[in-house]
Amino acid sequence: MNTEPLKNSPIRNKVFIDKGVGDHKRLSDTGWNMLNEEIGLPAAVIYQEKIEQNLRWMQSFADLSQVLLAPHGKTTMTPYFFKQQIAAGAWAITLASAHQVNAAHQHGIQRIIMANQLVGKFNMQLISNALVDPAFEFYCVVDSLDNIRQLDDYFTGQGQSLNVLIEVGVEGGRCGVRNANQAKELALAIKQTPALNLVGIEFYEGVIHGDDAETKIEEFLLSVVRLTEQLITSDVFENKQVLLTGAGSAWYDLVANALTQVDVNARILPIIRPGCYLIHDNGIYEDAQNEVLERGGLVCDVVGELVSSLEIWAYVLSIPEPGKAIIGMGKRDVAFDAGLPQPSLYYRPQSEDVVSADSRWRVRDIMDQHSFMTTPLDCSLKVGDMVSFSTSHPCLTMDKWRKVCMMDQQFTVRDVVDTYF
Amino acid sequence: MNTEPLKNSPIRNKVFIDKGVGDHKRLSDTGWNMLNEEIGLPAAVIYQEKIEQNLRWMQSFADLSQVLLAPHGKTTMTPYFFKQQIAAGAWAITLASAHQVNAAHQHGIQRIIMANQLVGKFNMQLISNALVDPAFEFYCVVDSLDNIRQLDDYFTGQGQSLNVLIEVGVEGGRCGVRNANQAKELALAIKQTPALNLVGIEFYEGVIHGDDAETKIEEFLLSVVRLTEQLITSDVFENKQVLLTGAGSAWYDLVANALTQVDVNARILPIIRPGCYLIHDNGIYEDAQNEVLERGGLVCDVVGELVSSLEIWAYVLSIPEPGKAIIGMGKRDVAFDAGLPQPSLYYRPQSEDVVSADSRWRVRDIMDQHSFMTTPLDCSLKVGDMVSFSTSHPCLTMDKWRKVCMMDQQFTVRDVVDTYF
Repeated sequence: MNTEPLKNSPIRNKVFIDKGVGDHKRLSDTGWNMLNEEIGLPAAVIYQEKIEQNLRWMQSFADLSQVLLAPHGKTTMTPYFFKQQIAAGAWAITLASAHQVNAAHQHGIQRIIMANQLVGKFNMQLISNALVDPAFEFYCVVDSLDNIRQLDDYFTGQGQSLNVLIEVGVEGGRCGVRNANQAKELALAIKQTPALNLVGIEFYEGVIHGDDAETKIEEFLLSVVRLTEQLITSDVFENKQVLLTGAGSAWYDLVANALTQVDVNARILPIIRPGCYLIHDNGIYEDAQNEVLERGGLVCDVVGELVSSLEIWAYVLSIPEPGKAIIGMGKRDVAFDAGLPQPSLYYRPQSEDVVSADSRWRVRDIMDQHSFMTTPLDCSLKVGDMVSFSTSHPCLTMDKWRKVCMMDQQFTVRDVVDTYF
Repeated sequence: MNTEPLKNSPIRNKVFIDKGVGDHKRLSDTGWNMLNEEIGLPAAVIYQEKIEQNLRWMQSFADLSQVLLAPHGKTTMTPYFFKQQIAAGAWAITLASAHQVNAAHQHGIQRIIMANQLVGKFNMQLISNALVDPAFEFYCVVDSLDNIRQLDDYFTGQGQSLNVLIEVGVEGGRCGVRNANQAKELALAIKQTPALNLVGIEFYEGVIHGDDAETKIEEFLLSVVRLTEQLITSDVFENKQVLLTGAGSAWYDLVANALTQVDVNARILPIIRPGCYLIHDNGIYEDAQNEVLERGGLVCDVVGELVSSLEIWAYVLSIPEPGKAIIGMGKRDVAFDAGLPQPSLYYRPQSEDVVSADSRWRVRDIMDQHSFMTTPLDCSLKVGDMVSFSTSHPCLTMDKWRKVCMMDQQFTVRDVVDTYF
């Protein structure tokens, strides 16, 4: 069935316009101004200055902590940002699937940690194709003998070899071996598998929850450090430098500290992998960052702070009852799994200034294409007014957008970036 | 910043591979077989035979009920399906935003109801551009004097006119006027607005919830019918045929019945707008359809039934503990807001047959890129096995995918369709 644009219409050959941007004919330094209504709302907007501040903040933290930074790219899936992260000093980009690795590598990212199992013939083929590029450096993780055999079969067949890290997990958690004996069993199996090079240990502490999470995480980190020391002593690693990598966006301070405590430190490449810091939010990651700051340590020496850099701008579509505004922004546009979006800025088209949203406005509910916002009964909000919303859980907002507007302080779009979800 | 594919690499000029498909070089009748692992998992798969069954079912219901069908396209945002729906007899496609209308029109859809307010200059410009096509027939809804003035300003400036329907809502609900007086006030205002033609009444009963929803919906439908009769008598409509349209995917039977009860029936074009029926699910819309069937009436005369036509196929990535399988499918791939995905089919690569998933397997939790599935302790599931999952709330699964594989009963991909979220 033909799904090409119309052949016999006045709009033939017109470029399709993606959600949340302006006219496609000018996609670089477009000059579109949002306040002049030159882009379609709802739109996902990232403030250039804010994201650059976040970029520098986390790299500074990694530098001060003497750990390498491999930011998790799954949050944004935006190669434009991956390149900025590498240019700012990141050692690699972390990703979660073969599809994501392929997207990043095709856009020029040359060192990638896939912090996940590589499973399935076509997924292995994607990685194999990328490995044809001699400049491409790739790491993935394993936690089972079955996966080791499957990877061996595939990559031996291609005449290629693969760098792997053993994933260490926690009882009741996600992937990863549950104890040192399982890790040693895998290490020995990898040593006997010519297609695989064991080059490190990987973990993700973010699956540990509960009131005593901090204590449990400290214990887990200590156990991983001890295991790594034992494995180094057992001489199971192929490479002189052993990668030791963990950390999501909530506990990277504890992880950075632990990674640099390994006794045989000279052989360790310590790598943290936070991802959400780049966009940050006004929800779960703001809370997590506040806890990081309360724990103190090197984070207190980093200049500045993380700020929420992403907002969704949308119109007031309807004010059907006093005190209720229906906003043209829904589950199709913004994350809703970790708190609803929060009103941030307000602008009435053709007026002078963008101002802060009334602190009494609240999003109470969200449907596919609409949000329900309550306001004071005497609110002067009108249909056609523009409101921006900050979000909680940037990953699930980003994956709703194919193009995101990079905006300066005058609300002029300076670039339009492509996502690859 | 350059985000083009690599310039100096062996993979130069390789086409980027989207999530959930195979090698892009053959996108039409590709011959890829999923069981041969010729596509990357996770993948969104629609079974051709099942979606065609759903397509016919709802059109038959509309035909039997003597109402027109304008399926809501927001669910799939897939012009390939819009064309199938039109070819099967749908009168129009319903959409929710100017962006969606533009995407559908650019792909050849010539009659569209935007069951939402058209707000904002750029959004109006998108519609204005489409209206340059003399074959394009467009309707949107209004519920405020402010919006009427804004539409008048813009379309008068373009020398164009716009067909509008008054949206009727419910107290405590979403958009729409709350009583007959407000509707009449808008009708008179539109009559005095040369750029706008009042051509009908629109409502959405799906915002009415609670134990007594059926009673409340019946009352609401009756009030809309009475209002429509009054407005027809008051001679506020521009056209001889008055559009009267409502219905989501849960109450379309009651709505179809109500729409054909208008006293001045000769002037009414009754239009229902369910959307989720095309994909259907094994969750909230299966429940809703069971309730439709329990209410009886004309639905019982329609041959066949609605079936869940969409599944996500994914690999078992890890079995870290007995009784727990980690699946390579997460919030990035599947809806999770109305129930978690449910195991449906099972296949071990290189084995003979696809079989039903063990009915004791349950998805208990979901993260961005992983699902947690519990199994019996003695389960024979292995890393690398493939499991398919049916879903609840198709809208939020579809918007996670740019390409969806259309699959035949042998699990061969017969087409790859593009979504335009």
